[in-house]
Amino acid sequence: MESETQGHPITCKAAVARRPGEPLVIEDIVVAPPNPREVRIRVICASLCGSDATFLKLQGGPPGYFPRILGHEGVGIVESVGKDVAEVTKGDVVIPIFLPDCGECTDCKSTKSNRCTNFPFRVSPWMPRDGTSRFTDLNGDIIYHFMFISSFSEYTVVDVANLIKIGPETPPDRACLLGCGVSTGVGAAWRTANVEPGSSVAIFGLGSVGIAVAEGARLCGATRIIGVDVNPEKYEIGKKFGLTDFINPKECGNKPVSQVIIEKTGGGADYCFECVGMASLVHEAFASCRMGWGKTIVVGVDKPGAMLSLSSYEVLHDGKTLMGSLFGGLKPKTHVPILLKKYMDKVLYTILQ
Amino acid sequence: MESETQGHPITCKAAVARRPGEPLVIEDIVVAPPNPREVRIRVICASLCGSDATFLKLQGGPPGYFPRILGHEGVGIVESVGKDVAEVTKGDVVIPIFLPDCGECTDCKSTKSNRCTNFPFRVSPWMPRDGTSRFTDLNGDIIYHFMFISSFSEYTVVDVANLIKIGPETPPDRACLLGCGVSTGVGAAWRTANVEPGSSVAIFGLGSVGIAVAEGARLCGATRIIGVDVNPEKYEIGKKFGLTDFINPKECGNKPVSQVIIEKTGGGADYCFECVGMASLVHEAFASCRMGWGKTIVVGVDKPGAMLSLSSYEVLHDGKTLMGSLFGGLKPKTHVPILLKKYMDKVLYTILQ
Ligand SMILES: [Zn+2]
Ligand SMILES: [Zn+2]
Ligand SMILES: [Zn+2]
Ligand SMILES: [Zn+2]
Repeated sequence: MESETQGHPITCKAAVARRPGEPLVIEDIVVAPPNPREVRIRVICASLCGSDATFLKLQGGPPGYFPRILGHEGVGIVESVGKDVAEVTKGDVVIPIFLPDCGECTDCKSTKSNRCTNFPFRVSPWMPRDGTSRFTDLNGDIIYHFMFISSFSEYTVVDVANLIKIGPETPPDRACLLGCGVSTGVGAAWRTANVEPGSSVAIFGLGSVGIAVAEGARLCGATRIIGVDVNPEKYEIGKKFGLTDFINPKECGNKPVSQVIIEKTGGGADYCFECVGMASLVHEAFASCRMGWGKTIVVGVDKPGAMLSLSSYEVLHDGKTLMGSLFGGLKPKTHVPILLKKYMDKVLYTILQ
Repeated sequence: MESETQGHPITCKAAVARRPGEPLVIEDIVVAPPNPREVRIRVICASLCGSDATFLKLQGGPPGYFPRILGHEGVGIVESVGKDVAEVTKGDVVIPIFLPDCGECTDCKSTKSNRCTNFPFRVSPWMPRDGTSRFTDLNGDIIYHFMFISSFSEYTVVDVANLIKIGPETPPDRACLLGCGVSTGVGAAWRTANVEPGSSVAIFGLGSVGIAVAEGARLCGATRIIGVDVNPEKYEIGKKFGLTDFINPKECGNKPVSQVIIEKTGGGADYCFECVGMASLVHEAFASCRMGWGKTIVVGVDKPGAMLSLSSYEVLHDGKTLMGSLFGGLKPKTHVPILLKKYMDKVLYTILQ
């Protein structure tokens, strides 16, 4: 079945980031038909993540591009597909995921990596496959893409490497949360750290990602899940998802948070997660994890150019590991459907509530 | 069978570090009988490691202590045992290992850690269990211990937590090499990195530890083992143990070594080992390892206070891991006997040759 719009440009509304730091402008834009291996979707739900705000605030010039359509979480319905697309068809419900998963390169075929070599993740202003844009304004001037998704538009074009088909019974306002924050947090505990049952976990920063880490740790069977945040209200929220303990750094007096965690856990947490995006906190997290086998996982995004500083002696002598976690170490097409199933089975609370 | 000396002090020769940076002095010293859970051994073989020289050069005051008996690699024969020692008996051949392995604490019972909690590793001037010395000079003044071993003496006292019994058929001049460098290098590849068959490895610094890493990688089945050293003669030596490639940083022109490794391996080495002990090289090693799953293992000992600096973005986005390796991640009483067997089976060349 062909749609009337198939093969033709679509004029629709989008929230366009016209200038750094200024409010988004709702305007009519033109969305070109999909190229080969691309899919045009009607966005039925989109959510806002911190990175959208971060990139809105950047000055013009790489990595800040204007005018641009932001948004990288969403759910959509396939309107039409380009050549050589067999994976989805008109009417399918899909989640776009900013991290490409081509299914063909060494990394996508490996179980160890979630970084596609064919289409490496970048905060790119273009489509991943041919480096061009599908958006123009009514004057015919280019509008830039964002993270291969640009969900703040009624229609957008996404590469098949960035699309996951989901069942039509999935509530879209829940499913779209799997596009970034929840997956990142749950995945960091599940896939990157591989949290063991019975273990102890400390989470620095209880924003939505930190809370999702708590949930991931609980699902993995961690028995001690310590949240660290300057806002005590976060403890009440976090308890629902798995937090068992809370530390407010403001109430630790002169004692470093790492010392408090070491005392609470009898030696240090088995896994520490830095979810704030402050390079200096990574050091504190590293100091909080257990000698001999502790892992520190960097989840938060700091400013480009920020440096992590660790004592050489600590790294060498303490038997600790430092790891980064991009999109929670999840392989989008393998692991997001598993998280969706957990949600449908009502064990993934961060989406349920 | 009691020895004549059992329960009595023994006067013997030792090479004593009297003053920072000055040659060792061969002099008569007095070695007290072993306390409970300690063993007095006659040292039949000792070898020299870089750390002995490093600690000889330190100024007086922690961590430099004088007068001191250095040496932390050796093989000995049990002369007498203190109370409550059932593990070894007079006449047994033993290797002392600087890293304690009490066999009773959480860490020693775990398969994940080689850092004993009961007797944490320190470059201590004392015995591990009661924090006193067994050495005096002929005036009765205390002489300090080194790394719980002090093998540069005809007799020394070592805690049972630091002793491994070996077969009398083992050549002592080979076995003593397992006390530090060879075990550290082979273990770093085998236990810390857990090098997979078919993988690629880059080793920064081809001293004895770096060469032992190459051997460990070969034993694990790595197929590409790249040595990096400014001395091209190291390639000829290294080939015998497993090196398949060599990079002389002086001959790379303006190209960073990491770039050369990325090109040689088609994306970066699966495992990179820093064996020089330069914090700045850790960054280069980290840049050389493969996105998605590369591990960088810090093996070299830098000066106390040296800091590792890594870009927060690289850690987060590149899916790489940074780990330290103390004594190669080996649990002394579990893994050193396995290495000894490999030597007796003639597959551990670094000791054979
Ligand atoms: Zn996001
Ligand atoms: Zn791929
Ligand atoms: Zn122990
Ligand atoms: Zn040594």
